Amino acid sequence: VSRRPRKSTHPMISVSQAIEIVLKEAEKMGTKTVPLYSALGYVLVEDIFAKDPLPPFPASIKDGYAVIASDGAGVRTVADDSTAGSSPQKSEMTSGTCVRVNTGAPIPPGADAVVQVEDTELIKEADDGCTELEIKILKEPVMGQDIRPLGCDIISGQRVLESGTLLGPTEMGLLATIGVTEVLVIDKPTVAILSTGNELQTPGEPLKAGHIRDSNKTTLVALVQQAGYQVFDVGIAKDDTSSLLTALNSAFSRADVLVTSGGVSMGERDILRPVLTSDFSATVHFAQVFMKPGKPTTFATCEYEGRKKLILGLPGNPVSATVTATLYVVPLCRKMSGRKICENTSMKVKLSERLYLDPRPEYHRVFLVWDPVSQLPFAYSTGNQISSRLLSMASAQALLKLPPATPEVKSLPEGTVVDALVLAM
Amino acid sequence: VSRRPRKSTHPMISVSQAIEIVLKEAEKMGTKTVPLYSALGYVLVEDIFAKDPLPPFPASIKDGYAVIASDGAGVRTVADDSTAGSSPQKSEMTSGTCVRVNTGAPIPPGADAVVQVEDTELIKEADDGCTELEIKILKEPVMGQDIRPLGCDIISGQRVLESGTLLGPTEMGLLATIGVTEVLVIDKPTVAILSTGNELQTPGEPLKAGHIRDSNKTTLVALVQQAGYQVFDVGIAKDDTSSLLTALNSAFSRADVLVTSGGVSMGERDILRPVLTSDFSATVHFAQVFMKPGKPTTFATCEYEGRKKLILGLPGNPVSATVTATLYVVPLCRKMSGRKICENTSMKVKLSERLYLDPRPEYHRVFLVWDPVSQLPFAYSTGNQISSRLLSMASAQALLKLPPATPEVKSLPEGTVVDALVLAM
Ligand SMILES: [Mg+2]
Ligand SMILES: [Mg+2]
Repeated sequence: VSRRPRKSTHPMISVSQAIEIVLKEAEKMGTKTVPLYSALGYVLVEDIFAKDPLPPFPASIKDGYAVIASDGAGVRTVADDSTAGSSPQKSEMTSGTCVRVNTGAPIPPGADAVVQVEDTELIKEADDGCTELEIKILKEPVMGQDIRPLGCDIISGQRVLESGTLLGPTEMGLLATIGVTEVLVIDKPTVAILSTGNELQTPGEPLKAGHIRDSNKTTLVALVQQAGYQVFDVGIAKDDTSSLLTALNSAFSRADVLVTSGGVSMGERDILRPVLTSDFSATVHFAQVFMKPGKPTTFATCEYEGRKKLILGLPGNPVSATVTATLYVVPLCRKMSGRKICENTSMKVKLSERLYLDPRPEYHRVFLVWDPVSQLPFAYSTGNQISSRLLSMASAQALLKLPPATPEVKSLPEGTVVDALVLAM
Repeated sequence: VSRRPRKSTHPMISVSQAIEIVLKEAEKMGTKTVPLYSALGYVLVEDIFAKDPLPPFPASIKDGYAVIASDGAGVRTVADDSTAGSSPQKSEMTSGTCVRVNTGAPIPPGADAVVQVEDTELIKEADDGCTELEIKILKEPVMGQDIRPLGCDIISGQRVLESGTLLGPTEMGLLATIGVTEVLVIDKPTVAILSTGNELQTPGEPLKAGHIRDSNKTTLVALVQQAGYQVFDVGIAKDDTSSLLTALNSAFSRADVLVTSGGVSMGERDILRPVLTSDFSATVHFAQVFMKPGKPTTFATCEYEGRKKLILGLPGNPVSATVTATLYVVPLCRKMSGRKICENTSMKVKLSERLYLDPRPEYHRVFLVWDPVSQLPFAYSTGNQISSRLLSMASAQALLKLPPATPEVKSLPEGTVVDALVLAM
């Protein structure tokens, strides 16, 4: 204990350097085939081609009458009808006639325009009072109007989705449209979540002397799940080698990524880094980041049973853990899932009040208010920013990126435009 | 057929009127108790009070030494140590001594400051080469430094979350911190999804003449699931009363909200509205909205087995269905779930090219690019906007809200600032 290092031996790096290192180490997962109905949120790893045109036949865009445009306005004999789902007519439509069509119905051969029902009048009906015999076209039709030609949306053989596309609701619909029922995607990482600390209890137990309840695991599980990744709860490890070893082996045998909180400061009980390096031959890529909160954030990789494992050791205090999970864990998971855009979206916001700057770049939790006269939203602090106060993270929609203080600039006045990372919209 | 109305008998309303009507009809669901681990995304319906202070004892923020600040800088005898998770010391610390502490450890009685290890030097160790006997404080300590006083984050009995709070990851952590393991929340609606149309096939079947594959159900299921709501797939109904009746009964018996696509135009096969009103005594609140795409969007409510059901009849073409689901279905579900903010976030974006305006207000799919010199993101059209082209929705991050054309303004030049609804960030 007495001869322990009194200063961190790891160099201090910037947040952008740290993100760069994390993303460089995060390699794409393997591929797997999933049925379409469970493909949402995965990244496609094959080009997808249409096997038939869309629409597969010329189709009406409106409810109305298929006509020959050159017949002009005026009275037409209603020769037939064509409804969505019926087989396209075989016989050619003749001049002076029309065919009643509804939206999505095949256009009969010979017809080259559709006149919407709003632009027609009934002229003559059959004695049954039901069947239309003659109608009047009120507006001269233009050739091609209100018809979707065969293949106008998608031609046969067209590449409709590229390998690397993230599958959202509309991409899912597009796959359904062209008859794809399963797709090859990049797998998503499973994330093990571990809290460390002799002082931690699970929320359900009565509080013992000198103890606090663990909140980080609950927050981190929710944060990672909300980002779309499967989590594996490894529980709480004590600050001793044997407890930590058990937890790490359990995590590495089941998950690709391990997110821990606590155990990364300079205390004699902060044993995450030594255990990772000595027992798992892990490489520590960084262990100090020039930021507030989150300075002792640690990133390491190791090989376990032939597979690369990525470890993000987040600080133990709740706000630090949440901020660093947003900055590092979520982008890491996106990268492993094959996403092209991995970093959080950064946007400009205006300060609603003067903020005093820290010597370190500070990530400050805010909610956003768009007022009608301003182009940019105003950022309101969610409260006291002491990093243990989880209360201040509640309802945050964005993380302000405040620059470090300089001798000249110690605060930023109300109305200053600063960058913010989007958390939720 | 011949005497059917040739124009819609429903008045045309604006998008904002339509949203207002939808939100007014959408009543909060009932309450239920859920375990904390599955409470993410629900709205709390009770005030939550802390039963003990946080921290429950004065705790160290750093690894270092608990001292008496008035002793100043200089050499101290290391009297004891206190680690996180140990019981707070009983005996008062005496002047000239210090107690080694780590982050989260209880502060011994009598100590009133913590000096971080970086600001200390080892002076004397025991013969075992392990135990510290004396250390030197390099910087004069300030009273209270690096100590979190008892209850500084949360005091006993404090209300930490208000009824009406949406439970995100940080709120979940806060609940864990104060030992809450189950919460009373507002239930979320179950959403039945139904496609209608004789021309529709499921994506897996070989394509028959005059048919297309249904994509709307796949898109809408994904969209509603992504928004956090449970879906019930009702399948595809034919354009006949008996098929539609079967589907509607199935939907109403299992779900709170029904989202259909197709069957809401002016065609003779567009039977959703007549069947809802005649067979379920539904009230149609609107059936024409002044927007592009999505004009025939229909909203109705009815009572089924003593419970109110809400029905959104979306147009059948895929882009219209997706846009109107975003505009109406998601806000409706949020309202029923007790969310305070139900409408989509609207932000300002700049046009990357000249856009021509439609006589109707148009919702135009774009992706956003933030360039470093501009405060606002540039919006790039995701392609051809013909409403049947689902391709144009792929990768959209926002929906531009373009104003209707006027005799004076028929287009908006590049760089114009317009409103956009956020879809994904
Ligand atoms: Mg600890
Ligand atoms: Mg139809």
